[in-house]
Amino acid sequence: MIRVGILGASGYMGGEALRVLLRHPEAKVEWATSRTEQKAEMIHRNLYGAGIEFIKQEKTTSVDVVFAALPGGHIMKEAPALLEKGTRVIDLGSDFRLKDIEKWGKVYGKEHASPSLVAEAVYGIPELHRQTMRDTRVVANPGCFSSAAILGLAPLLKNRMVDHHKLVVDGLSGTAGAGAETDTSVHHPEIGNNIVSYNVVGHRHTHEMEQELGYVAGESVSIHFTSHYVPITRGILAVCHGFLNSPASREELLDVFRDFYRDEYFVRIYDLPKDPDAAWQHRPYPWVNAVSGTNFCHIGLDVDEERGRVVVFSVLDSVGKGGALAGIQNMNLLFGLEEKSGLDFFGLHPY
Amino acid sequence: MIRVGILGASGYMGGEALRVLLRHPEAKVEWATSRTEQKAEMIHRNLYGAGIEFIKQEKTTSVDVVFAALPGGHIMKEAPALLEKGTRVIDLGSDFRLKDIEKWGKVYGKEHASPSLVAEAVYGIPELHRQTMRDTRVVANPGCFSSAAILGLAPLLKNRMVDHHKLVVDGLSGTAGAGAETDTSVHHPEIGNNIVSYNVVGHRHTHEMEQELGYVAGESVSIHFTSHYVPITRGILAVCHGFLNSPASREELLDVFRDFYRDEYFVRIYDLPKDPDAAWQHRPYPWVNAVSGTNFCHIGLDVDEERGRVVVFSVLDSVGKGGALAGIQNMNLLFGLEEKSGLDFFGLHPY
Amino acid sequence: MIRVGILGASGYMGGEALRVLLRHPEAKVEWATSRTEQKAEMIHRNLYGAGIEFIKQEKTTSVDVVFAALPGGHIMKEAPALLEKGTRVIDLGSDFRLKDIEKWGKVYGKEHASPSLVAEAVYGIPELHRQTMRDTRVVANPGCFSSAAILGLAPLLKNRMVDHHKLVVDGLSGTAGAGAETDTSVHHPEIGNNIVSYNVVGHRHTHEMEQELGYVAGESVSIHFTSHYVPITRGILAVCHGFLNSPASREELLDVFRDFYRDEYFVRIYDLPKDPDAAWQHRPYPWVNAVSGTNFCHIGLDVDEERGRVVVFSVLDSVGKGGALAGIQNMNLLFGLEEKSGLDFFGLHPY
Amino acid sequence: MIRVGILGASGYMGGEALRVLLRHPEAKVEWATSRTEQKAEMIHRNLYGAGIEFIKQEKTTSVDVVFAALPGGHIMKEAPALLEKGTRVIDLGSDFRLKDIEKWGKVYGKEHASPSLVAEAVYGIPELHRQTMRDTRVVANPGCFSSAAILGLAPLLKNRMVDHHKLVVDGLSGTAGAGAETDTSVHHPEIGNNIVSYNVVGHRHTHEMEQELGYVAGESVSIHFTSHYVPITRGILAVCHGFLNSPASREELLDVFRDFYRDEYFVRIYDLPKDPDAAWQHRPYPWVNAVSGTNFCHIGLDVDEERGRVVVFSVLDSVGKGGALAGIQNMNLLFGLEEKSGLDFFGLHPY
Repeated sequence: MIRVGILGASGYMGGEALRVLLRHPEAKVEWATSRTEQKAEMIHRNLYGAGIEFIKQEKTTSVDVVFAALPGGHIMKEAPALLEKGTRVIDLGSDFRLKDIEKWGKVYGKEHASPSLVAEAVYGIPELHRQTMRDTRVVANPGCFSSAAILGLAPLLKNRMVDHHKLVVDGLSGTAGAGAETDTSVHHPEIGNNIVSYNVVGHRHTHEMEQELGYVAGESVSIHFTSHYVPITRGILAVCHGFLNSPASREELLDVFRDFYRDEYFVRIYDLPKDPDAAWQHRPYPWVNAVSGTNFCHIGLDVDEERGRVVVFSVLDSVGKGGALAGIQNMNLLFGLEEKSGLDFFGLHPY
Repeated sequence: MIRVGILGASGYMGGEALRVLLRHPEAKVEWATSRTEQKAEMIHRNLYGAGIEFIKQEKTTSVDVVFAALPGGHIMKEAPALLEKGTRVIDLGSDFRLKDIEKWGKVYGKEHASPSLVAEAVYGIPELHRQTMRDTRVVANPGCFSSAAILGLAPLLKNRMVDHHKLVVDGLSGTAGAGAETDTSVHHPEIGNNIVSYNVVGHRHTHEMEQELGYVAGESVSIHFTSHYVPITRGILAVCHGFLNSPASREELLDVFRDFYRDEYFVRIYDLPKDPDAAWQHRPYPWVNAVSGTNFCHIGLDVDEERGRVVVFSVLDSVGKGGALAGIQNMNLLFGLEEKSGLDFFGLHPY
Repeated sequence: MIRVGILGASGYMGGEALRVLLRHPEAKVEWATSRTEQKAEMIHRNLYGAGIEFIKQEKTTSVDVVFAALPGGHIMKEAPALLEKGTRVIDLGSDFRLKDIEKWGKVYGKEHASPSLVAEAVYGIPELHRQTMRDTRVVANPGCFSSAAILGLAPLLKNRMVDHHKLVVDGLSGTAGAGAETDTSVHHPEIGNNIVSYNVVGHRHTHEMEQELGYVAGESVSIHFTSHYVPITRGILAVCHGFLNSPASREELLDVFRDFYRDEYFVRIYDLPKDPDAAWQHRPYPWVNAVSGTNFCHIGLDVDEERGRVVVFSVLDSVGKGGALAGIQNMNLLFGLEEKSGLDFFGLHPY
Repeated sequence: MIRVGILGASGYMGGEALRVLLRHPEAKVEWATSRTEQKAEMIHRNLYGAGIEFIKQEKTTSVDVVFAALPGGHIMKEAPALLEKGTRVIDLGSDFRLKDIEKWGKVYGKEHASPSLVAEAVYGIPELHRQTMRDTRVVANPGCFSSAAILGLAPLLKNRMVDHHKLVVDGLSGTAGAGAETDTSVHHPEIGNNIVSYNVVGHRHTHEMEQELGYVAGESVSIHFTSHYVPITRGILAVCHGFLNSPASREELLDVFRDFYRDEYFVRIYDLPKDPDAAWQHRPYPWVNAVSGTNFCHIGLDVDEERGRVVVFSVLDSVGKGGALAGIQNMNLLFGLEEKSGLDFFGLHPY
């Protein structure tokens, strides 16, 4: 059994890691920390009766791997000591995501404490970095919007099918993305029947998208990203618009996507036929509630042949495939397990 | 492996049975039927890629157990032939729930086709009928509200603690309870920011509650039940009010409930301390979203000592412990498996 | 024009008073206060462009009437000085609601600063206190749940039709009832797909209900009240259950209600015919979204003749007829205006 | 008093016209039609007690103006007879929106019955067509998404500030936009915690946007439009992305918008300062719930100076400024009334 520790388990991200790791057949949660020592179920009522007690970080013991769900800037300081003890680190935060250390400093407003680890860390999208990830000690788990947009656009950029400087992405997020701390923008009376646009230019995840999609494209790309909260609790829809370099049909592009993700279990191309006369079920675009609570990403698309635009819909759960569950997939990979170990369950319908 | 068939898998109840049975370690779904032959994922997007094809009922083969999620009045006609072939029947509908065959006829507006099976059927709450259920061929799975109210009130009635003719129950249901067929009362523009009271007197589940709680009490009881849709998708909260026969404190009543459900895995007494100065987490009443998608029922309570009332909060998922998942628990029991086999997963937070 | 001031206009209650008073044909808002001097639209985006600047309380000038939407305990200290200057006071808070000064002290945890004003104040339900209210200087505007339950139960108690010690009320509230301050119980990720029961025994509004309904009944009554947040933004549904002293039909009870509220513009008896075969529209119970944003209260009911229970549904908006708009109705009454002046607009459909 | 008739008042659009016209100081609703003769309140519970009876179309009498909220293809046949009797027509549907009669035929799948009236009709955005509208007999009220996108993009195109062939618009709509007929895509269990993308290329409103913005730009434009339902009941957010022809700051662009809409009462530029350190209230982008139920459109924007993109946020209510209320503004204009007559009320907070 892999011995696992979770740093920061009282938030939504750490709580999700805890939920799934408690039932992982090949991992054992040795401890989970929070600022207050208390039963996990005081915060995560879904774990009622599971008997988990949060401990303070000072009391943690040695484990094989740590999931870090800490506020920004902590794990970059603590990782070296963990690595020295032979513990691998999966950072569910943003400390190791940007390879350009200067850009990181500007974006996050502080100086990086462990630049060499940034170089060593692998950006945690196994669909892109599976080979290098197997041997790394540090995984930089991607931002939630980043995961959705990168998975949604990579096939197009790999195949140079779209204008790579005019990619427009609207990211619609459930309020879980705002975290467990209360904030007026996700206060129910304000958001319950509303849409709240935020970080509409300069969202930090933009840099991750440009970094990773630049690698895929083999040249620099520009992502024009804007984010919004909508009144759903979990899940993300990234609506990704690209201008086609040359005409292509929906079916041709679906082929490109199916090919790109051919062997991927968790990325599913949503390629149901498009039938304007058919009932609602046949509307062939993915729904975010189908993947909520799971490690799946569903990707669908359509083409405006008259105007030369492709629109890609990439849905995932911000704490699932866009967060903690992708982290568990990464853990499986690091330790040579089957990638879907502990993660092979369906979403809910209705959700 | 237990060979399972699902009759009527395109609805929410049958779909939920399918979702969980597909990952059950000791059962194998041989087939699932719907009126239209199509991929399951055309209806249940959560099963995208699972490769399930619905077949018509005519094409079904022999199995060990059938889950029936059919419109009322069908399985009572079809059960005898199934039983003859050695197939057990778990009816997720209402054909076998009421022992009083005349009352059933009045409530459901038709004559019963298999009165002898009604006598044989066991009402599917293992917490009350575990012993007799082991040997039955027919399980009458309870109504969703019934499950919540019966589990919430049984300990009080067993111990004769409340006026058994003045039990008031408000049942708040998510819209999944309305089923997959569209209806204006759960049309999003109407219900999205609304509460819709319906069947406010004479709800069919009332009779199940009175039957089962009457058995528990050893005398006839009256349930004053009213139901409402609230704009959540899944889950039920039964708010059960009783007038205490003699003074009792919250802690004393929690003892009664803890004792009654001492050995039950899926019924959990929500007995966090009541601390008026504490933060929200400590509000010691169960939340329906903690059990959505699971087979758990959380029960909490409080007492108005000044006025002599106990209020019990019983939460479960109408297609979970109040439906298909309870059916799977019952299947496990019928076949001598561990009761939690295939069902031992947590809910989501946030949900 | 009546000169009006609003104390505490940055909350939901004060903001609603402001919204409607700004378009009142016979009143003029002289000032509105908040702790921070800022444009009203920084908080109330619905007032964008209205040009309202909040001022600090120190800068207020003399007006004819003040709406107080302050935290508990403030206006009881400030009212005497206002009255001395000839300003009438409509308290949207709880300082003057309970006639029993000792009980008030226990319920609100402080000593009352102006007991003589408590005696003078009129409880602000014009349907019950219209005559005395005309001459008062202080109106104690009722609590939101209190308004709903009192209006829903008064006709039954006036006519001694129900067991007055076994009245059970479940109050379902939109999250606006929690106020503008963030709190985890109304944090969208927690409540968005959930029901949160709180103050399930001993809710402060219980005492108001018992006081006012005791006057109506001519004897003491017991209200067994429990409150819950549901994920709607505005509005309250009080589900009021009573045990009938003698058999009565739905139609007979509707007569009692129609008679009781015969001349009331803002209380409407929802008496559509009950037709089990009819489509959804004919489900004859009121919907809370029909009165949201208005000063209307819709009341409907049904009877379980078999078990001798009446259930009354009383819907209103917690900041409308259950709050600030009832306050404006009261102002109209105090100043001899037509009661519906400034308030005669419909709700929205859909809402 | 202007005598008004409403054709098709049982839908959301006609119901909204009815709601506001019933309180319009200078108009009188002579009749409102629906397929079934019944009280308006059977459908529109917000009008409970208003005493409105829907009549069949055969029984209508002569009026000064008709609001047509009929299924597509009806009013184009009926308008000539109405005009002959001196009745003006405000079509809340799509029969007269596209000037290109051939395109209309292709888009709506039928031959147009009154091409000459298409030529005469004025597209009902007074902010663009006020002068010609005063003298017209037929107003083609715009589509809801069209109103939002046209108002949001017109100032940029008028001033040739963006690449007019690469305008990307994501339209997020409340479910009221789906109409009163039930459909699984807006069935609460499906949409309640979900986002449903639909008409993601080739949405009919695209052609209106291109027509009207082409006039404004003085050359053909391409709108890359995609629509989505989010689980709010009313309101639309059009997120409009444009690539700037030359660098410009947020403040410079706000100037352009303020100038363009300088004298408009109902279009408000949301130009609160952008302060990254400030609390949520200061997030300077408009919220759709602030204009729900009103005739206001709020427009805000931001600029990604690094990547040369402007993003415009245009919010309105699909049955308000994007529908029936804009129709009433147009009626006021046609009859020489003050444009805001009957429409000068605020939205709700919270909504």
